[in-house]
Amino acid sequence: MDNATIKLIKSLSQKKFRDEHGLFVVEGEKLVEELLQSDFVIKKIAYSKPLPYRVTAAVSEQVSMSVMERISSLKTSPPVLAVAAKRDAAALPAISKNELYLALDNVQDPGNLGTIVRIADWFGIRHIICSEDTADCYNPKVVQATMGAIFRVQVHYTDLPAFLQQTKKLVPVYGTFLDGKNIYHQALGAGGIIVLGNEGSGISTEVEQTVTQRLFIPPYPVSATNSESLNVAVSAAIVCAEFRRAPN
Amino acid sequence: MDNATIKLIKSLSQKKFRDEHGLFVVEGEKLVEELLQSDFVIKKIAYSKPLPYRVTAAVSEQVSMSVMERISSLKTSPPVLAVAAKRDAAALPAISKNELYLALDNVQDPGNLGTIVRIADWFGIRHIICSEDTADCYNPKVVQATMGAIFRVQVHYTDLPAFLQQTKKLVPVYGTFLDGKNIYHQALGAGGIIVLGNEGSGISTEVEQTVTQRLFIPPYPVSATNSESLNVAVSAAIVCAEFRRAPN
Repeated sequence: MDNATIKLIKSLSQKKFRDEHGLFVVEGEKLVEELLQSDFVIKKIAYSKPLPYRVTAAVSEQVSMSVMERISSLKTSPPVLAVAAKRDAAALPAISKNELYLALDNVQDPGNLGTIVRIADWFGIRHIICSEDTADCYNPKVVQATMGAIFRVQVHYTDLPAFLQQTKKLVPVYGTFLDGKNIYHQALGAGGIIVLGNEGSGISTEVEQTVTQRLFIPPYPVSATNSESLNVAVSAAIVCAEFRRAPN
Repeated sequence: MDNATIKLIKSLSQKKFRDEHGLFVVEGEKLVEELLQSDFVIKKIAYSKPLPYRVTAAVSEQVSMSVMERISSLKTSPPVLAVAAKRDAAALPAISKNELYLALDNVQDPGNLGTIVRIADWFGIRHIICSEDTADCYNPKVVQATMGAIFRVQVHYTDLPAFLQQTKKLVPVYGTFLDGKNIYHQALGAGGIIVLGNEGSGISTEVEQTVTQRLFIPPYPVSATNSESLNVAVSAAIVCAEFRRAPN
């Protein structure tokens, strides 16, 4: 592998260069397998040992272990690493009244973002709309944490308050707040947007103003006064499960 | 602060020394405040600037920023760091038929363990029983991820298969499996033990044999065949929420 390519791949650990080149990195046998099954365009595959699946010869290149160590962001360098083209994050989906969406307002932790993408995949949510300041879904840590869900769920970035101002006219906008209504006592429709906020400060005032249904996940016992709230990915999981729960 | 104390505190980032001294480290203004409100015995408090709360003078010591940087495990060293005595992890709780417990079978990721402790706290679960090979709850990353829940929830370590063999005679033992029964169609009692497995390999065969009720969190749509399962902390959240849900 030539030095320019090595340098390019290494640079993709930074958002600036992912944006500049429109590329991101996928590492590990299982994740690359999921990438191959997706509709993402693959630009390069580097492997250091024979793979248990076929890869297009035109983009593939066998590399030494030491090259793999140089281009990998993982502690233990993987047997395979791919470079793929990012999706166009600016193309927002047309909002359907019968679909469920997630909106992320400044979610910062890559592990949380990855876990939320994985939750969306499990619960059949196909689009996540993020504020511009939410962590980048093509960050290597996020890609790893999604366990491949990033190839099936579309993650978009936009001016979130402006987007929600418009869409709240079409579908309900849900958010969880400590003063919200017990989620188990609310009639939840088939469609809507579930807003999730920042790890430290929650949902911003600007986004909060677009929320039409304030929900609350009750602690146990309901009267408990816990000083702490739930982790954002945990809240996402409980709210999504409640929406997708088969009616009793 | 003398060098021996600095050396001791630094050594507590390793389990070996936490076990040897029976001590662990708590960092940050908010976590130390929660520690002060708990029944944990505090051995030492180091602070680099005035604190917004009172600390016992006998164990407190003002230190320079550079000392704080040396003893802290955080990227940005906090204004306060405390050393506290670990709880006796070997003292198992007497199992009550009306209480809910978590059992962790080789959960490895500190972030997952911390998040699970936080979920337990939210849902009024007071005891978590872990296999000997589960991550150490006094690992600094776990303590941080619990956001203080570690001071309220008791975490025990024991021979988990042997423990469950005995307790399954008293209470149901629940576990989630891809071939389990839809959790929303099961009658869940007020008491029982919810088993959560390893991030990669799930619940071990030995522990699986003690499970009396096999549950499944359905994806959406229910017929979806997702290749991936849910993250262990996410599963824990959904199962706990379902147990603690007010009856409709």
